[in-house]
Amino acid sequence: MNTAAAHADLLADSIDRAGSPVCVGLDPVVGRLPEALAGYDDEAERVEHFCTGVVEAVAGVVGVVKPQSACFERFGSAGVAVLERVIARAREAGLFVILDVKRGDIGSTAAHYAAAATGLGAHAVTVNAYMGASSIEPFLDAGLMVFVLVRTSNPDSGVIQGEALARGGTLAEHTARLVHELGRAHVGERGLSGVGAVVGATRADEGAALRELMPDTPFLVPGVGTQGGRTEDLAPMARPATSAGGLGLVVNASRSVLFAGDGTDGRDWNERVRARAKALADEGRALHGTRSAV
Amino acid sequence: MNTAAAHADLLADSIDRAGSPVCVGLDPVVGRLPEALAGYDDEAERVEHFCTGVVEAVAGVVGVVKPQSACFERFGSAGVAVLERVIARAREAGLFVILDVKRGDIGSTAAHYAAAATGLGAHAVTVNAYMGASSIEPFLDAGLMVFVLVRTSNPDSGVIQGEALARGGTLAEHTARLVHELGRAHVGERGLSGVGAVVGATRADEGAALRELMPDTPFLVPGVGTQGGRTEDLAPMARPATSAGGLGLVVNASRSVLFAGDGTDGRDWNERVRARAKALADEGRALHGTRSAV
Repeated sequence: MNTAAAHADLLADSIDRAGSPVCVGLDPVVGRLPEALAGYDDEAERVEHFCTGVVEAVAGVVGVVKPQSACFERFGSAGVAVLERVIARAREAGLFVILDVKRGDIGSTAAHYAAAATGLGAHAVTVNAYMGASSIEPFLDAGLMVFVLVRTSNPDSGVIQGEALARGGTLAEHTARLVHELGRAHVGERGLSGVGAVVGATRADEGAALRELMPDTPFLVPGVGTQGGRTEDLAPMARPATSAGGLGLVVNASRSVLFAGDGTDGRDWNERVRARAKALADEGRALHGTRSAV
Repeated sequence: MNTAAAHADLLADSIDRAGSPVCVGLDPVVGRLPEALAGYDDEAERVEHFCTGVVEAVAGVVGVVKPQSACFERFGSAGVAVLERVIARAREAGLFVILDVKRGDIGSTAAHYAAAATGLGAHAVTVNAYMGASSIEPFLDAGLMVFVLVRTSNPDSGVIQGEALARGGTLAEHTARLVHELGRAHVGERGLSGVGAVVGATRADEGAALRELMPDTPFLVPGVGTQGGRTEDLAPMARPATSAGGLGLVVNASRSVLFAGDGTDGRDWNERVRARAKALADEGRALHGTRSAV
């Protein structure tokens, strides 16, 4: 199981089981946690109870979760210990775990980051290609699947990713070519590469062009919900229906699911989280249609 | 003290006190630790004793240390606890601490990373600008000094930083313009900006052009020693002697100092580390000449 390609197969299986490409991002923010958890004085402990509850709420509804490392690291070593336990719980629940760390360093340093992510139990990590291929390969060598930042969802990302021109295209397209080249050697039995790409839902307009450059690349798509991206607009980013494979999409929503939170309808916070995740999974299922993940 | 500009002043003071721009990188690798530390069974514990010994060995010889987060993160929460204690020891010893994390994420996520770095006791952090200004500003808002990756020392970095063209220059130059723009609002009383740049020693040929684009920007220069960069070649990266300020350089060496290690001359490993740091500091002092850091 310990290769990037095998992890790509596992991702495909997880999405097929859920029948939807939706991924729930675990971005706990203390200030927004449910009232019901206010009893825990220690913030890291409150975050752990929240994330464990979310994992249990969305298990069986979606196939993938994406813990945001920063939200745990901010509590120092105690937070990293919480992250370790939350990932273990997610794996027990049969969820594919993309650890969102956006690391970008080279050689032995990247190998250390890969060892850290493997030690935490991640199946895949997000990485940054600014330093080139040598900032990606050590993660693949360690058997992790990666998602390389290509075109991100934040409004001002264009200053680097859009304006910077390379070989007649944008930096995003340049990075996309690198991702495709690196990925060729890591395509799994189910047709998806172990080298994925992060392409924001708010970049759907550029999605078709990026898909052409990365035909077998799974796209991790943040920005749905709170950031304004809409699931129904993601079709251009999907792999063509004519391809042997499926959508090749992992559609992430974080705050819009996590902070469905407390309400006035009498339901517990985790019931509301599950309901919100289910509604999103159904939207994703519509996009998914009858196609399998590969 | 809690602004990026004030931290830039503190960096200038630290370099002036040492009289040399040399920075020692703390990149502990278990396989290469001195024999003398083999007695500690726990690897994280061995790393802690090594790093504490290095900090004590180089204190007073150099003014800056750069812990490599990955080397500690690889031990999970225990490693992060070690990192916390090593940074605390470095601060006690009066050293300026650049935490090498190369984080690159946006908004609230970047704010979490900034909180994590502040909690660990860092004065400055390395950051990645692929996602744009919004991946840098939250660190400045938190009062941290930053060093943005511009032109890195690894051999294959040119595929992204060199080939990608923007506004008629390389991506490195494009990023350099962003760094300069962001830095204008964060120049300290001693003339150095709180927004620094990482420019590899192996890129000395491009150093002059990058310096023109970033006149007040402190350059963190890795790649001296093991990676083949030479201190005496860094003059083109320095701020012009005609400028009110000084060199604006922080010259980092890691392995060549750390793993001066055991030997046959009867000295303890930490004496050899101190001697190697001193030799490098003297090289840097020659470059430094009679100029102050600002």
